[in-house]
Amino acid sequence: MAERGILAVVSGFAGSGKGTIMQELLSRYDNYALSISATTRAPRAGEEHGRHYFFVSTEEFERMIREDALLEHARYVSNYYGTPKAYVEEKLSEGKDVILEIEAQGALLVREKYPDAVLLFVMPPDVNELYHRLKTRGTETEEVIRKRMARAAEEAELIVKYDYLVINDDLDECVARVRTILQASHERTGRQAERLNTIKEQFKLFLKEEK
Amino acid sequence: MAERGILAVVSGFAGSGKGTIMQELLSRYDNYALSISATTRAPRAGEEHGRHYFFVSTEEFERMIREDALLEHARYVSNYYGTPKAYVEEKLSEGKDVILEIEAQGALLVREKYPDAVLLFVMPPDVNELYHRLKTRGTETEEVIRKRMARAAEEAELIVKYDYLVINDDLDECVARVRTILQASHERTGRQAERLNTIKEQFKLFLKEEK
Repeated sequence: MAERGILAVVSGFAGSGKGTIMQELLSRYDNYALSISATTRAPRAGEEHGRHYFFVSTEEFERMIREDALLEHARYVSNYYGTPKAYVEEKLSEGKDVILEIEAQGALLVREKYPDAVLLFVMPPDVNELYHRLKTRGTETEEVIRKRMARAAEEAELIVKYDYLVINDDLDECVARVRTILQASHERTGRQAERLNTIKEQFKLFLKEEK
Repeated sequence: MAERGILAVVSGFAGSGKGTIMQELLSRYDNYALSISATTRAPRAGEEHGRHYFFVSTEEFERMIREDALLEHARYVSNYYGTPKAYVEEKLSEGKDVILEIEAQGALLVREKYPDAVLLFVMPPDVNELYHRLKTRGTETEEVIRKRMARAAEEAELIVKYDYLVINDDLDECVARVRTILQASHERTGRQAERLNTIKEQFKLFLKEEK
């Protein structure tokens, strides 16, 4: 049986580059799986069911809530978004490290259910750089960018609750840092309760035989 | 100014191979420093002052205790052993990761003074392997080996207080795992309070200007 994977939650400001980092991680290594969210909103052009999202009806989503089938969920405007538990559990037991790319409120909910989850926050080296990145995307109006900056300022208050703060100054270095953090997380004592019990039993047996 | 180093505390049963792992780490990379203990016991053949230990008088050692110049200390039989703070602080501010190779009681005392310290426990894959390693050293009587095993069984109760449990099955892999853990520790949010404050200040300024 494969060693159970790590549950890693990755958050970051819009414009932090976290999406690109996760894509790189998934394309370079085969021990990671990206969790796919469920949503009640309609698919946009090019979005595929089971790849970008699980697109479900409101009835279906509310049934998942009732049956505790979601790791976390939230409602934005009139749509639900959430993380289906089954997919995450399946990948974890296959030994994959599962990455959840969700925002801070959801991240903290996940930690309540999975105390061993590793929480990473990704951000650019400074605030001006963040503004610059949003600006050069060229897809949003100045007003939308200002709203995103105000939201980022709010999110910044929650970073202290994350285990790791990863600065995205250089893509390759950042991917390497995230990988290092996930690798180290496998050795945490909290994940090795079973092994510890085995060791204690072995000592008991050994010392008994010795008498 | 160099980023402050990590304080890493490494413990392990006698026979765990932790000494060899630390030597390898120090010889392969130049960003580590090994803390040198102070002791009141007499030097053994081949031991050098300032390399293996700082050999000091009992008066000197007790003065260090009074002046809070030790990170931790303990008395075994009639001798004192302790970790001088000045050397550790000097290396940390040079940006070196400082490794303290001490036993569990001392490790937990260090954590009280340095909450950001990273605690690693190294052990062989299982208890029989531990016995086997002590046995094949050939330097100790069966009685001494049995005492060490009994002591190891006691220490095993404290492993749960460590951050990481590293299995020493293969030297190279184990060195790599320890290095990964130390590298990841640099990104911990708890170490980046200053950066977080800067970011929050930058957001405040930015949002003020935007109004």
